[in-house]
Amino acid sequence: MADPLNCTASDLLPILGGAANATAVATFICSRFEAVSAKLSDATYAIDNTYLLFSAYLVFAMQLGFAMLCAGSVRAKNTMNIMLTNVLDAAAGGLSYYLFGYAFAFGGPSNGFIGKHFFGLKEFPSLSADYSFFLYQWAFAIAAAGITSGSIAERTQFVAYLIYSSFLTGFVYPIVSHWFWSGDGWAGAAKSRGDLLFGSGVIDFAGSGVVHMVGGIAGLWGALIEGPRIGRFDRSGRSVALRGHSASLVVLGSFLLWFGWYGFNPGSFWTILKSYGTRGPYYGQWSAVGRTAVTTTLAGSTAALTTLFGKRFLVGHWNVIDVCNGLLGGFAAITSGCAVVEPWAAIIWVLWASWVLIGFNKLAEKLKYDDPLEAAQLHGGCGAWGVLFTGLFAKKAYVNEVYPDRPNRPYGLFMGGGGKLLAAQIIQILVIVGWVTATMAPLFLALHKLKLLRVSSEDEMAGMDMTRHGGMAYIYHDQDDHSNLPQFRMNRIEPRDTPTPQPFSQPRSV
Amino acid sequence: MADPLNCTASDLLPILGGAANATAVATFICSRFEAVSAKLSDATYAIDNTYLLFSAYLVFAMQLGFAMLCAGSVRAKNTMNIMLTNVLDAAAGGLSYYLFGYAFAFGGPSNGFIGKHFFGLKEFPSLSADYSFFLYQWAFAIAAAGITSGSIAERTQFVAYLIYSSFLTGFVYPIVSHWFWSGDGWAGAAKSRGDLLFGSGVIDFAGSGVVHMVGGIAGLWGALIEGPRIGRFDRSGRSVALRGHSASLVVLGSFLLWFGWYGFNPGSFWTILKSYGTRGPYYGQWSAVGRTAVTTTLAGSTAALTTLFGKRFLVGHWNVIDVCNGLLGGFAAITSGCAVVEPWAAIIWVLWASWVLIGFNKLAEKLKYDDPLEAAQLHGGCGAWGVLFTGLFAKKAYVNEVYPDRPNRPYGLFMGGGGKLLAAQIIQILVIVGWVTATMAPLFLALHKLKLLRVSSEDEMAGMDMTRHGGMAYIYHDQDDHSNLPQFRMNRIEPRDTPTPQPFSQPRSV
Amino acid sequence: MADPLNCTASDLLPILGGAANATAVATFICSRFEAVSAKLSDATYAIDNTYLLFSAYLVFAMQLGFAMLCAGSVRAKNTMNIMLTNVLDAAAGGLSYYLFGYAFAFGGPSNGFIGKHFFGLKEFPSLSADYSFFLYQWAFAIAAAGITSGSIAERTQFVAYLIYSSFLTGFVYPIVSHWFWSGDGWAGAAKSRGDLLFGSGVIDFAGSGVVHMVGGIAGLWGALIEGPRIGRFDRSGRSVALRGHSASLVVLGSFLLWFGWYGFNPGSFWTILKSYGTRGPYYGQWSAVGRTAVTTTLAGSTAALTTLFGKRFLVGHWNVIDVCNGLLGGFAAITSGCAVVEPWAAIIWVLWASWVLIGFNKLAEKLKYDDPLEAAQLHGGCGAWGVLFTGLFAKKAYVNEVYPDRPNRPYGLFMGGGGKLLAAQIIQILVIVGWVTATMAPLFLALHKLKLLRVSSEDEMAGMDMTRHGGMAYIYHDQDDHSNLPQFRMNRIEPRDTPTPQPFSQPRSV
Repeated sequence: MADPLNCTASDLLPILGGAANATAVATFICSRFEAVSAKLSDATYAIDNTYLLFSAYLVFAMQLGFAMLCAGSVRAKNTMNIMLTNVLDAAAGGLSYYLFGYAFAFGGPSNGFIGKHFFGLKEFPSLSADYSFFLYQWAFAIAAAGITSGSIAERTQFVAYLIYSSFLTGFVYPIVSHWFWSGDGWAGAAKSRGDLLFGSGVIDFAGSGVVHMVGGIAGLWGALIEGPRIGRFDRSGRSVALRGHSASLVVLGSFLLWFGWYGFNPGSFWTILKSYGTRGPYYGQWSAVGRTAVTTTLAGSTAALTTLFGKRFLVGHWNVIDVCNGLLGGFAAITSGCAVVEPWAAIIWVLWASWVLIGFNKLAEKLKYDDPLEAAQLHGGCGAWGVLFTGLFAKKAYVNEVYPDRPNRPYGLFMGGGGKLLAAQIIQILVIVGWVTATMAPLFLALHKLKLLRVSSEDEMAGMDMTRHGGMAYIYHDQDDHSNLPQFRMNRIEPRDTPTPQPFSQPRSV
Repeated sequence: MADPLNCTASDLLPILGGAANATAVATFICSRFEAVSAKLSDATYAIDNTYLLFSAYLVFAMQLGFAMLCAGSVRAKNTMNIMLTNVLDAAAGGLSYYLFGYAFAFGGPSNGFIGKHFFGLKEFPSLSADYSFFLYQWAFAIAAAGITSGSIAERTQFVAYLIYSSFLTGFVYPIVSHWFWSGDGWAGAAKSRGDLLFGSGVIDFAGSGVVHMVGGIAGLWGALIEGPRIGRFDRSGRSVALRGHSASLVVLGSFLLWFGWYGFNPGSFWTILKSYGTRGPYYGQWSAVGRTAVTTTLAGSTAALTTLFGKRFLVGHWNVIDVCNGLLGGFAAITSGCAVVEPWAAIIWVLWASWVLIGFNKLAEKLKYDDPLEAAQLHGGCGAWGVLFTGLFAKKAYVNEVYPDRPNRPYGLFMGGGGKLLAAQIIQILVIVGWVTATMAPLFLALHKLKLLRVSSEDEMAGMDMTRHGGMAYIYHDQDDHSNLPQFRMNRIEPRDTPTPQPFSQPRSV
Repeated sequence: MADPLNCTASDLLPILGGAANATAVATFICSRFEAVSAKLSDATYAIDNTYLLFSAYLVFAMQLGFAMLCAGSVRAKNTMNIMLTNVLDAAAGGLSYYLFGYAFAFGGPSNGFIGKHFFGLKEFPSLSADYSFFLYQWAFAIAAAGITSGSIAERTQFVAYLIYSSFLTGFVYPIVSHWFWSGDGWAGAAKSRGDLLFGSGVIDFAGSGVVHMVGGIAGLWGALIEGPRIGRFDRSGRSVALRGHSASLVVLGSFLLWFGWYGFNPGSFWTILKSYGTRGPYYGQWSAVGRTAVTTTLAGSTAALTTLFGKRFLVGHWNVIDVCNGLLGGFAAITSGCAVVEPWAAIIWVLWASWVLIGFNKLAEKLKYDDPLEAAQLHGGCGAWGVLFTGLFAKKAYVNEVYPDRPNRPYGLFMGGGGKLLAAQIIQILVIVGWVTATMAPLFLALHKLKLLRVSSEDEMAGMDMTRHGGMAYIYHDQDDHSNLPQFRMNRIEPRDTPTPQPFSQPRSV
């Protein structure tokens, strides 16, 4: 459809008929409409860039959230180590994504597999993307690496970290995002030319698969190849919790991730000023952005509550750490479908996401898999759960608003849209598992063979902060004063011979 | 160069001549104006929703602020407990506000007492509200519950917490917000139909009454019925400070609340693109939004400084915890009138808010009332002070800009606007105290009778983290290493010659 | 009243016809264009104010970042002291900047040296500035004072702090910002009337000089006059690291500063809706804002990585604290030129900023200069480095877009723009060093003479929290329980007899 504001003198002239000054009249009027049109175009760019830039800042804040969550979840002796990896995700990711990562991901036109333009932001910005878009995508790329760092925490050599992180942020992740998010990718629902996969394409709106599964599966291979931390399973093979050193940092990090998720999910529309032409003038992409924030909120809320009561039932106490993990699992699960499902569907489905997490955690214990942040279970497991969710609950109207110009496209199976979208979603899960396995497992294996992956057991026992990073993270005493001050005492943190530390007033149900 | 949009009659007049195709010409021109009008409407929605969504994210960040403030203000042994309540405020509030809270609050048309539409966001969005508005109001609702949790910290059963929090967020608070903020409420200044209370209605712009007093008064009843923490008053009845375990968390939380208040107060305009048609084209709602941010900043600054010097004078040292509480008291006091007062008025009035807080704290000590976060004093006391402030200092021009279409409405008494607004404000204080007392006091009493309110004294002494939440929040030592490391030492925390509050075994007051 | 944009054919039809109605036709059409123009003007104000307000909130978040960074970088015994100074920077700065600071800085028309309008925001807002602009500039002013507080941490009397902070925020800093940023300042590149300095004016876009050098040089004089902390250099004159007490707080603070820098640099355009009329309709100030966010990101990333590997090479371990300082040095260095350089230039230049920081730190050790936060080296040194950078790498096209209406203005020396801009930049460095020295050094000297500057050595040893602020910041043990709990043990934080705590696998190079 032509731009309804398009006013050219040659259009107006014949309409004006015989008037002597017709040309002048037409020029006078049309030049003003053209000026209005240009100003509206400018305003649209300003609004959309403001929306996307501030969303990018929020997504960046998630990196701080990861840093605090990870720090609080490891033992005090490895705090500086894990925080340094989080800072470097952002920094190394900044350079590699600028030099080539962005080009691989969004450098269309491409062959559908890997992008090939805009290396080092050459010829940037263009009609298709501005700097705000680069910044937004960079913030996503570093999130993936941040997830992986959790899985391999407390036992990985720093040099291994530098290698895998650059490889993941600069190559593995950008290619996945090219497949599913760029207009050229072979599998995306927003593919701009040619047939869609199963006539549908994969709907992974904000990246349950592209970000969370990629980070989680990468972490899975790293943690599997390294093996569990010393002491994580005792001689008889029983699981021993190696508790993190600060619940305050865990809660701080979780809330910051929640805060940042409002950039991650609602921001993934990339623009906010777009009319949908349905329901009424008040309804447009701004409504869909808001609805996405609401489904995200409800998903996190539901998962947090389910985890609270589930773990109370299973373990016998109200555990804030578990609730935080459940919360994040709920977010990971809603991220794929957040823009195309109804709020009630988010609640119904995510109700089960916390059980997926609990189940995968049980399985991990059985298999003696040790993931200090539960990152593979949480981001990998709940992420995959979320990808399926979209295939079941995506609503027709929303799918067509968010992915327009493809009439009769499939939508969620449970919403009457057939199984094609679900099939595409399953393909996504398989492809991501396959691709990340094919790239990251060999890398971690090679590092393992080269003895670059795991620290020595002496260093692991002593902690990496002391042996590699110049000292411990905390000094709560003052080295100057060894004098006449009374001795400090502190309660032991956890009773020594768990499982039943103190008589709970409630008997443990399981 | 002249503005290309400048279209004056004297320019067009000589150009126009006779015209045969008048209908076609009219259609051509008017269809373009219609398109312009539609695009401007879209842009307005996009701008207003962007502004409101990001404001909502800031208000949500206050929940993190509360969590950190509360955590730092309690003893280490109750850290996980209090943080869990803050996470759950957000999560349980998400579901209850979605299912019915929002409907009670903004489901007009109503009978003026309670809303009745939009349960589960049915038939949403509508011409009157979009998802961004729901999200914004949800973030407010959970703030109220967060305030209350501070008052009853360190001694309340977790199940009691779950019950009161759902009741407050889902019922008590929404109804108050319906009365004062919805277009249907019987007492609001923005009531859309019928007479205003005293011809004025209550001006509680961002909720000194609706949010802060509600949370504070609810906390007051909870804390009164539970009685003080063990050890809070010694055998001779003297007050003993039970200091929080981390000033860093207190400062972190206070700054986050300050940060979030920029969503709370300036965001309460709900839209930013609105011309006021006064003073000049540069002046509009965007100016009022900015002015609200400025009055908020000045109020907090003034209260912080007054508290600093006041406490220095009264107690003899410069106390950052007190300054943070004073700061928050200043914010609670400006929240009612922030949009309708001059910056200088904010300074003058809030100067006294810190003394209100100091006074209420003195009174609380006298009455052996124990509120670990000073929440009732701060949010209840300074909140009420702020409600009065608006009745005295609301400026005529600002009141008419923010609450338009009611000519000759009253404004602040000291500004020459008569006593009617002040009368309405006093009614608000009485009504909120009455309503919250009538609903929350019986609930806390019932929980008390059912022995569901307070934990056992053994559990209280041991701390709730150990007994209810699976362990302590912090593990700064490493359980692996009991070996040959030198012993850790730490200074005593407080100066020696305080009334050394060693082993307590106080009788509980209630 | 009907929508003035509503234009239907049936309205227009009877008007059109004979030339006799030409007046009516013209009025009809033009009044609608006028309405469109007014609405577009309103929308522009709303967009620009939204952008600037949220940028201001981000800059404010930097104050929280400073508080956490400073707290983590000092010893536990001075935590409350340093955090209180950060809270007070914001609060005292709020009042003083409202009363006179803003007037000194932006109260044009002026004599070019100091502004003289808008005291107490009288006659505000005006055509030239709205409240959002005041808020934004206030957030900058308090950042300068925050920098200085780091240099003099752990040994300064609180009253000295109150005095210098008010003087810096209310007088010294506003005048510098007047010179370089207001339309009246004698040296700015955006000077609105008269000749520019060297035909160019100083380009200090977001304040490497105006903010960072001012804060850093002020800190330099304070720390020089006070002398080093007790124990910072041992009897034989060797440097002894007095490590901060919490790396977690340092990382938290650094990430928050990174987050806030997205308000600081990209926000310094003050407006976002402006067409540049070059390259295509998609390109405008929104692109420049985004590009500024990208250069900022790349600068921080580059400096962080350079520092990581540089310090690994020099000292032998991977140090997160150093990386954080390097990161912040990179930001301080890009802040001047962020809007007018290419991303690749940011990388090339900032690569050296971390070496500037390392070099100044070496020099400081040699000279026995003690700056607990490295604030003078980091903000002063890297800030000056950044000012020079702009003179070398500012790109012609960007300079003319950001500072328009001055044809043939000089730009970066390395970009072919001659040496005039560089000359202006050098003048800025000299002038700032001179002005801050001339004002702050006498102040600190006077405080020193009056014995108001430094605390007694007993107080310094005991820590200021205990002696001045009512107690220590942390209580991790519970005073109630001295009973039958096993004794808490903690690893020593740092090996006792440094320098070589553990055999690092790499020999230390320096």
